[in-house]
Amino acid sequence: MSFFASRWVDAPDCAVEVGDGLLPQGFRAAGVAAGLKPNGALDVGLIVCDAEAVTSAARFSRSGAQSAPVLITRQQSQLDGLRAVVVNSGNANAATGERGLLDAAAMRAAAGAIAGVPPELVAVASTGVIGVPLPIDAVTAGIAAAAVRLRNGGGAEFGEAIRTTDAFRKEVGLDVQLSGGTVRLCVQAKGAGMISPNFATLLVFAQTDAEIEPDEVELLLAVCTKRSFDRISVDGQLSTSDTIILQASGASGVRIEPESDDERAFGEVLDAALRQIALLVAKDGEGARRIGRVVVRGGDQRGVERVAHAVADSPLVKTALYGADPNWGRVIQAVGAALPGSAPLDVDIEIEGIEVCSQGSYVEHDAQALAEAVRRDEVEYEVTLAGEGAETERFFSDLGHEYITINADYTT
Amino acid sequence: MSFFASRWVDAPDCAVEVGDGLLPQGFRAAGVAAGLKPNGALDVGLIVCDAEAVTSAARFSRSGAQSAPVLITRQQSQLDGLRAVVVNSGNANAATGERGLLDAAAMRAAAGAIAGVPPELVAVASTGVIGVPLPIDAVTAGIAAAAVRLRNGGGAEFGEAIRTTDAFRKEVGLDVQLSGGTVRLCVQAKGAGMISPNFATLLVFAQTDAEIEPDEVELLLAVCTKRSFDRISVDGQLSTSDTIILQASGASGVRIEPESDDERAFGEVLDAALRQIALLVAKDGEGARRIGRVVVRGGDQRGVERVAHAVADSPLVKTALYGADPNWGRVIQAVGAALPGSAPLDVDIEIEGIEVCSQGSYVEHDAQALAEAVRRDEVEYEVTLAGEGAETERFFSDLGHEYITINADYTT
Repeated sequence: MSFFASRWVDAPDCAVEVGDGLLPQGFRAAGVAAGLKPNGALDVGLIVCDAEAVTSAARFSRSGAQSAPVLITRQQSQLDGLRAVVVNSGNANAATGERGLLDAAAMRAAAGAIAGVPPELVAVASTGVIGVPLPIDAVTAGIAAAAVRLRNGGGAEFGEAIRTTDAFRKEVGLDVQLSGGTVRLCVQAKGAGMISPNFATLLVFAQTDAEIEPDEVELLLAVCTKRSFDRISVDGQLSTSDTIILQASGASGVRIEPESDDERAFGEVLDAALRQIALLVAKDGEGARRIGRVVVRGGDQRGVERVAHAVADSPLVKTALYGADPNWGRVIQAVGAALPGSAPLDVDIEIEGIEVCSQGSYVEHDAQALAEAVRRDEVEYEVTLAGEGAETERFFSDLGHEYITINADYTT
Repeated sequence: MSFFASRWVDAPDCAVEVGDGLLPQGFRAAGVAAGLKPNGALDVGLIVCDAEAVTSAARFSRSGAQSAPVLITRQQSQLDGLRAVVVNSGNANAATGERGLLDAAAMRAAAGAIAGVPPELVAVASTGVIGVPLPIDAVTAGIAAAAVRLRNGGGAEFGEAIRTTDAFRKEVGLDVQLSGGTVRLCVQAKGAGMISPNFATLLVFAQTDAEIEPDEVELLLAVCTKRSFDRISVDGQLSTSDTIILQASGASGVRIEPESDDERAFGEVLDAALRQIALLVAKDGEGARRIGRVVVRGGDQRGVERVAHAVADSPLVKTALYGADPNWGRVIQAVGAALPGSAPLDVDIEIEGIEVCSQGSYVEHDAQALAEAVRRDEVEYEVTLAGEGAETERFFSDLGHEYITINADYTT
């Protein structure tokens, strides 16, 4: 089965999945068990780029309670030239005050020493429980242990080390055919929908051996993040620790010129990869049954965004999705809540192409066909407001018993 | 046990609960089974005020998808002089288009004919499933049947008729001692926390036989609603149909002068009654275990409101409350999400008086004491931001398995 499994992602023509487990040229990675996870699983990961000419870009959670590694990386690292990335799972190093900042800086320094670069060229990320001091000695020992394992084939164990409660790995390797030759793109991510809040952080690391100017790396990551991770509603909650990094080593010798056909082709591949991974994040979680997509058209941009958020974040819509309940009243309720003061509301609603509401009023429809349609793995809701021009989409996970079970009894 | 059971409500000194089941002077009510509820339960309720000098005030859902009865009442009734209220449960008459408006108008006209007043002096409310036409013939037949049952002791059966999935009745009768004599205040309400979305509408009807000027009725209802129903987070969802009405018949002959001690005393009683009922709404729902209160201080008013909403609406905080999980990381996560771009965040957090976070960083605390504290029926979270002056509170229900069970399989 293709990595690009969702009907909401266009599999790019110019890319092929690769199964050799190798990172793009110029990158080495490793993952080790440093003892942060009680079960002895891998919990410290390291990526090093050996190319001095690396370019990069990074994006972070906008939370007011950003974790120490987010603060250190965002404020003190050179985000357009990151040579190394060091990550631990099992502890978020968030709400840890001055000590947390010192610990994040220590991780960064240790990784920099191994990569042979100043700390400013290292990004650090942590995911796990909030409000507990990081066992920094164990982490730095883990970084040292990772140093000797670094290799071009180490992407999979790095991916393993950043996982927390993810039910499945979220990784892909793609070879992309460009006019000047073939480049590779690899992505490792962690994040699970509607599950395990303290571990719900999104971490995404992407590497390519294409040669790309810093401004273009920034642009590519910004555009593709906006169409992927910015469009998933997990549980409407913003993590302290979300981090997304794209590094380009240039080691393939294949250069991507700004505004070229090659850039468009590479952008399509990155876009598809990140969208599919975002959908995997929405779908992950023990017992998650299906994912939804809401498309909102008409009105103005602010209005469609508000409506898309309201539908995708609604626990009523999410539980209906979980139960395959064709209860479209919950959709119009969410739309109305997003647009206060606009009654009577001129809105059309279709679910899986079946019109259920026109101009704010119910439409007779085939209830049996609708009941069958909402049992699919992916369910699409289309909301059309009065007016033209604006359009957005949002992906969301369902809300089921497993979310309650896991979240109601997490730290105890 | 006193009606004022919550520690978050100050039981007013000048009021005593009355058990005689009688409405304030000047009011008659009834409830009948009109066949809207499949199980044959009461589903049409009527309140009539026989005093021509009645004063009243009303508040409604701000949803853009307001139901037909909300639209008709809000736009076409004389809200400061409502003589009658007619309600049905089992069908919300929402997303029902032109026909829905005609049906709501027909309900209003039928109730007006029985009360002997023009339709403009009648309020109409409906609660139940969205997007299904109202069986108007059954409803008008029910209104006719209610006419012959109207009596001063009919408040309880009216309260029964407006219930949907409420696990318990939400009503109170209070005699209030004022300088000029005793007045009565009765309240009937429906609404259940985190449960049965299509039925999650809040309906509140309050009657008194005090004589109060229309402006003062409006002011009293506005202030008391703001401190009660505006401060509960059920599931963060806004109903199409919320309606709150206060009627004052003046039939006791006891007048409440504007800005008098009597007005303050009556306001305290109304405030306590509506707050306690709001807490009962948050607490209701099959399997709901406990309710939370978040108090946010410091910063500015916009900031504290955002933080209070974020904490109270967070599914992570709600599931932790359900599971009695002392996981304060979820609280700081919600605070951070509400205040993007403000990192590093200067915030203190206490749970049941136990300090767990100071200036954004964890505080060593007695974990055993905290674990015991969060098992109480009511759990209080205090969040203090930098700065002074602003303060708000918000009440919220927990999120448990029963919400999933009921909401995942509602219409099928």
